Amino acid sequence: MIAGIETGGTKVICAVSREEEPERIVSSVRITTTAPAETIDAVNRFLDDVSTEEPIRALGIASFGPVNVEPSRARYGWITGTTKVGWQNTSLLDRIPLARAVPTTVVSDVSGAALGEYRWGAGRGLQSVAYATFGTGVGVGIILNGSLVAGNGYPEVGHVLVRRHPRDDFSGICPFHGDCLEGLTSGPAIMARWGVNASLLTGRARATGYEIIAYYIAQVTAQVTFALGVERFIVGGGVLGAPGLLDEVRQQLSGVTGGPLAGHGMTADPFDFLVPPALGGDAGVLGALAIAEGLVLHQPLTEVAP
Amino acid sequence: MIAGIETGGTKVICAVSREEEPERIVSSVRITTTAPAETIDAVNRFLDDVSTEEPIRALGIASFGPVNVEPSRARYGWITGTTKVGWQNTSLLDRIPLARAVPTTVVSDVSGAALGEYRWGAGRGLQSVAYATFGTGVGVGIILNGSLVAGNGYPEVGHVLVRRHPRDDFSGICPFHGDCLEGLTSGPAIMARWGVNASLLTGRARATGYEIIAYYIAQVTAQVTFALGVERFIVGGGVLGAPGLLDEVRQQLSGVTGGPLAGHGMTADPFDFLVPPALGGDAGVLGALAIAEGLVLHQPLTEVAP
Repeated sequence: MIAGIETGGTKVICAVSREEEPERIVSSVRITTTAPAETIDAVNRFLDDVSTEEPIRALGIASFGPVNVEPSRARYGWITGTTKVGWQNTSLLDRIPLARAVPTTVVSDVSGAALGEYRWGAGRGLQSVAYATFGTGVGVGIILNGSLVAGNGYPEVGHVLVRRHPRDDFSGICPFHGDCLEGLTSGPAIMARWGVNASLLTGRARATGYEIIAYYIAQVTAQVTFALGVERFIVGGGVLGAPGLLDEVRQQLSGVTGGPLAGHGMTADPFDFLVPPALGGDAGVLGALAIAEGLVLHQPLTEVAP
Repeated sequence: MIAGIETGGTKVICAVSREEEPERIVSSVRITTTAPAETIDAVNRFLDDVSTEEPIRALGIASFGPVNVEPSRARYGWITGTTKVGWQNTSLLDRIPLARAVPTTVVSDVSGAALGEYRWGAGRGLQSVAYATFGTGVGVGIILNGSLVAGNGYPEVGHVLVRRHPRDDFSGICPFHGDCLEGLTSGPAIMARWGVNASLLTGRARATGYEIIAYYIAQVTAQVTFALGVERFIVGGGVLGAPGLLDEVRQQLSGVTGGPLAGHGMTADPFDFLVPPALGGDAGVLGALAIAEGLVLHQPLTEVAP
């Protein structure tokens, strides 16, 4: 058996499956995220319970962060400067005995979701995909030629500058950059600007709001794709729950990249290139299981700079 | 012996070296780029001459483009829709007999320069570096964990949108996007805007011009580094020949990334992170030799998406 853990800021999902069918979860538990000790004790109880009959051979962890994901560096597997009260400087690996007993790899939550979607969801069958999430924060996970691109502090596209929309004078909410991508397009940014979630915008505010938000999301899509040539860009997170917003992003992407005349592959078929996630809330824990499967097969999916 | 060719729009450089000391060029020639037949005939004559005594075992080619660099796709090694008169739809591999006789790899000119700098220049000893060039056009080469990131049409950062500087109302010169990065920061864009090269700007125009150009270069530096965590960013090309411009980019990068408070590694030591190229005009042909060396050692440096 193999195990995957998705450590989120509000809930932790643990799951186990068999190596030969890693995407089929045979047992799982959902734990509300409280203090580290209490939360991780519940994780360990689950892992103990499920391994009484059959041993767990590998563990994948996809965690909220910032989390250190470079095995060669100090404090590997630590959640460091998080805003989540009580979780600053928490070593996940030290608190989970199984992690010291079997091959274990830690990645970020969005890297985990990207791996899940790449393996069994909207990126299935491709070699290079990106998964961007617009929710409480803005993050991206990148798989390039079958390998996860990740290290301490990257990918981190939330803080890039985007060109401002001419009708947008909102100053943004990022404490460091004000109107960086996250400061303009995260759920809290949209709430601060319009007073409601994107899905509750109506009338003229909806038309303008969608155009503005989509313009920014299209820019980061183009940035990553121009640099890395990903074959598909998956866009998810609570903000994209607003009906029709993804279609507006597809429209804006055409403008941002120069349209069909410029001839870039990413605009050839917007419905094939820019897609919603397929695995919903399971992407993260499935990604963690994909990592564990790779560890058993000695094909680690992660590629980390020294 | 191994051979490297850098095919430029104005000149072609061919060089050979020995596998055991690939960075030491033992013979080379510089050919003015005219029509394809004439130019490539001169290349072939050089290759024939140098291989009379000792056979050439592998060939690396770094070419201007757009050039197809994916071996698995149709028209591999073709220069396709270039603006260079007479060179549209030219197959380099078909016109160089050596390329059919020994292992050969084709990359873009900026990928070649990036490989040269990574191997023997400003990126020596690191695992992940980017090399961006601002000249006739704007391009970037990326080496991630020791592998070149490249495919047909990427990396292609010239056409990303950057946030406009508040004091810049120039409409840009890109035929597709107007004021994309290349439309604002290429040599021709600077010439169109100020009437002189960046190095000839003086007085107030110099202060303003440097600030504007550096603001845009800093943004693409941050975009690529946020996404990929490169350890060093090399910035070259004719535009960066303007004295003091690189220092201004270092300054702007601090602002663009939120400064020391935001704590991103790329701002910790700007003089270590953001550097000029070390190999000058030899970077491209040395990169081509690095590719050829990799082919002999069966360690291809290129990693190409299918």
